[in-house]
Amino acid sequence: MALTLNSTHDAARRSWIDSANVPDADFPLQNLPYGAFTTANGHRTPHLGVAIGDKILDLHAAATAGLLPASVAGACQEPTLNALMAAGAGAWSELRARLSELLGADSGPTGEPRSRVEACLVPQRNATMHLAARTRDYSDFYASIHHATNVGSMLRPDNPLLPNYKWIPIGYHGRASSLVVSGTPVRRPHGQLKPADAPEPVFGPCKNFDYELELGAFVGPGNALGERIPLASAPAQLFGVSLLNDWSARDLQTWEYQPLGPFLAKNFATSLSPWIVTFEALAPFRAPALARPASDPAPLPYLVDHDDAAHGGLEVTLEVWLLTAKMRLAGEGAHRISRGNFNTMYWTLGQMLAHHASNGCNLSPGDLIGSGTVSGPSRDSRGCLLEYTWRGTDPLRLPNGEERKFLADGDEVIFRGYAERAGARRIGLGECRGLVLPAA
Amino acid sequence: MALTLNSTHDAARRSWIDSANVPDADFPLQNLPYGAFTTANGHRTPHLGVAIGDKILDLHAAATAGLLPASVAGACQEPTLNALMAAGAGAWSELRARLSELLGADSGPTGEPRSRVEACLVPQRNATMHLAARTRDYSDFYASIHHATNVGSMLRPDNPLLPNYKWIPIGYHGRASSLVVSGTPVRRPHGQLKPADAPEPVFGPCKNFDYELELGAFVGPGNALGERIPLASAPAQLFGVSLLNDWSARDLQTWEYQPLGPFLAKNFATSLSPWIVTFEALAPFRAPALARPASDPAPLPYLVDHDDAAHGGLEVTLEVWLLTAKMRLAGEGAHRISRGNFNTMYWTLGQMLAHHASNGCNLSPGDLIGSGTVSGPSRDSRGCLLEYTWRGTDPLRLPNGEERKFLADGDEVIFRGYAERAGARRIGLGECRGLVLPAA
Repeated sequence: MALTLNSTHDAARRSWIDSANVPDADFPLQNLPYGAFTTANGHRTPHLGVAIGDKILDLHAAATAGLLPASVAGACQEPTLNALMAAGAGAWSELRARLSELLGADSGPTGEPRSRVEACLVPQRNATMHLAARTRDYSDFYASIHHATNVGSMLRPDNPLLPNYKWIPIGYHGRASSLVVSGTPVRRPHGQLKPADAPEPVFGPCKNFDYELELGAFVGPGNALGERIPLASAPAQLFGVSLLNDWSARDLQTWEYQPLGPFLAKNFATSLSPWIVTFEALAPFRAPALARPASDPAPLPYLVDHDDAAHGGLEVTLEVWLLTAKMRLAGEGAHRISRGNFNTMYWTLGQMLAHHASNGCNLSPGDLIGSGTVSGPSRDSRGCLLEYTWRGTDPLRLPNGEERKFLADGDEVIFRGYAERAGARRIGLGECRGLVLPAA
Repeated sequence: MALTLNSTHDAARRSWIDSANVPDADFPLQNLPYGAFTTANGHRTPHLGVAIGDKILDLHAAATAGLLPASVAGACQEPTLNALMAAGAGAWSELRARLSELLGADSGPTGEPRSRVEACLVPQRNATMHLAARTRDYSDFYASIHHATNVGSMLRPDNPLLPNYKWIPIGYHGRASSLVVSGTPVRRPHGQLKPADAPEPVFGPCKNFDYELELGAFVGPGNALGERIPLASAPAQLFGVSLLNDWSARDLQTWEYQPLGPFLAKNFATSLSPWIVTFEALAPFRAPALARPASDPAPLPYLVDHDDAAHGGLEVTLEVWLLTAKMRLAGEGAHRISRGNFNTMYWTLGQMLAHHASNGCNLSPGDLIGSGTVSGPSRDSRGCLLEYTWRGTDPLRLPNGEERKFLADGDEVIFRGYAERAGARRIGLGECRGLVLPAA
C-alpha cells in the first residue's frame, strides 16, 4: 500500500473551531484522533469522540444526527473503537475524510447545518476519558537498540546485545487486564526483592520504581489463527498509536525475570494516553526505516518490504516530564527529563506486527503492540530512569535540588508526544500522565 | 477455608443415569464438570452443560425449566461460565448440591418430574464442545521442579536450577487469543530457527514441535487492580481445572527466548480439555503441598498458609498418549508415553494465584493459570518430549517401531487425567486432544 497524502493532511487548512488553529495545538484539523469519554451529567456508557482543538466531537451524537457515513455509523455508536478498528482502512479513510470536511473552515457546513455539528461538541475539560479500545491481548516489544544495549550493558558488560537482537523483533506478552487510562494513579507495588548482596529475598514495596516511555500501536482487522500478516499489509492492519507507560518495578524484575521474562515487575499497571492518533494522520511524518550499519545483518525476507523500508519509520518526538510532590507544592511546572524520537527504533511497528503473526498467532481488533522503551543514543533521549540514572549510579538532578535514582511517591510522570516537520501541520499525541501512590 | 466433604462426594451414591455408574467412568455423580456445547440441529450459541456419564445436562434448559437455584439460574443461561465463576464459592456449592440431588439415584425426582430432567439431557456424542470460559488473561507458570531442573540441565549443566526458583512461583503471560478447545487441529508453526552450528537463523517450519502436559486452573471472582489475593482465599478464588497442552516450538523458543521469555514459540495455540472439573469435586483428592527438603528455603510469608500446606496439593494422575498417522492407519490404539501426578509440583495452584496478585495485578473471572509442564522424577513421568527424549538424544520408541525425537505431522497428542484413591469415587478430567497438521 503506497503512502498517500490528501486534503485531510493539507497544512494550510483550518477548522472553524478556533482552538484547533492555535499554533502548536495538539489537535488541529489535520489530526482528528479518537477517544472514548463520559461527561458528568451525560451518558454513563462511554461515547466515542474525536479531539478537535479543546473540544470533542461526540461521534455517537454525530452518527445519530446523520452526519457520518452510513457505513461506519454503527461503529461510531459503540462504546469502544473495536468495531471501527475491525472495519478496515477503507472505512477509516472514509470517516476521516468526512470528519475533516465537517470540521474544516473551508468545507464545513455553515448556518443552521453547522449548528447541528456544534450540538455534537463537548468541551474536553468537561469530559472524563476512558480506554478507547477493548484490548484482548497486549504484547510488548523491545525495539530500541539503544535501550537494549544500555540495559544489556548493565547486566552483561562484555556482551550487551544478545545474538538474536538484530534478527528478531524481540517481544513478550503483557497483561491486558491492568491497562489503565492516563490520569489513573498507579500504586507502588509489593513484590519479592533481592539485593545482590543479600542472601535471601524479602517481600516488600518496590524500591526501584520506573517508567518506560513507549508508543502503543492498536491493531485493526487482525488475522485468523494460523494465518500470517505479510509486512506489506501492515498499513491496512495498524489503526493508530497512543503514548504508553510500561511502569516497571526494576528490583522485582531483576529477581524474577529468568528464565521466562518479566511478569509481576510489569503487570500491576500500564498507562495509555486517551487519544489514539491514526496512522493516516501520521502519514506526513512517516520516514524511512532506520538505516542499519552495513555490518548488521539484513532482516529475513518476511521482515522486508519495500514500502516499509521507505516509510515504515515514524518521526514522532517523545518527551518525559516529571512533577514531584515538592514541585507541585511550590506551584512549579513539570521538568522535562528527556526527549527522544521514534525514528531511532531498530524495528518498525510493521515489522513487529508481521513478526507477531509470522507463526499464525491471531491478532484481534484493539490488540495493543507496545514498542518497547524508546531510547535514543544520548543520555537526554533515554526513555526510562534505569538508563537515565544508569541503575541509580548517576542520579537525575532536578532544578529545585531534588534528586532521583528512581521514582518517589508523589511523583507524577507525564509523557508528551508530537510530530512536526516543515510543510506539515504539527500534530500532537496529547499526554499520558500517572501519579505514583505510596505502597498500600 | 477448611476442606469439607459432603454428600456430593459420597462414593456410595449412584446416578439414575446408568452410564455415570460404570466403573472408571470419567463423569460419575461425584464429578459434575462444566462445559459449553452446541448441537448440530439445536441452539447456535453455546449452552452450558454438566457432564454426567455419557450425557450432558443442558444447564440453560434446566434453568429455563426451573430446576436450578434461582440465584444462579441467570449465570447458567450464559454461553460461558464467566458469570458462574464470578458468583463465588457459595453459589458454586449451591449449584453443585442441587445438581447432585437432581441426578442422584437416591435423591433425584421420579415419575413425571424426572422426565423434566431427562428432557434436559443431550448425548455427548451429539455435542460439539467449545471453550467453556471467556479468558481475558492467560498466565503460565513453571511449577514442576523436575521440569525446571531437566530443562535447566540441558541449558546450564553446572547450574540447572536458577537461584529464584525455590522462592518464586515463576510465571509469565501467555496468549489468550489462541486458546483452543480439545479436538482443534494445531498447525505446525513457522518461525526463526537457528541451529547451534549455523551462523545465521532461517525462517521456516518448526522442526522441534512439542507438547507440554499441564493443568489449567480457572479463576473465580478475582480481585480489583491494586488489591491482593491472600493465599488463604485461594479456595474461594479457584473454580476448577482443565487439561492444558502448552504446544511449544522448541527451536523457535531456543532462539527467541532471551531476554524476555517465550513468545512465538508458544502463542500459536494452547489447547484445553472441554470439561472444567471443579475444585469442590476434587476435594477428596486434595493432598498436602509438596514436602520440601529441609535444605530448601521456607517460602516467604505471603506464600504460606496452614490450609494450603495441609491440602493445597492435588492427587491427580496425568497421562500423555500418542497416536501417529501410521498407528491410525493400522487401526491401532494410542500409546501411552508418560504418566505423572500433579502432587509432584513444587508450588501449589494457590501459591501461584497468591503470587500473581501479590503486586496488585487484577485477575478476572475466567482467567486461566497454567501450572507449567507436569513432570515427575522418572523418565516415564516427564511431561514433554524435550525432557522425555532429552532434546532428541534419546528418542521415544513406539511399539510399532516408529521413533520420535519431537512430534511429526499427523501425530495426535492425547492428554488424560483422573483422580482416584481408596474410599473416594474416581473422577476423570476427560481428554485434551490435538492433531498436528503440516506447516502451511
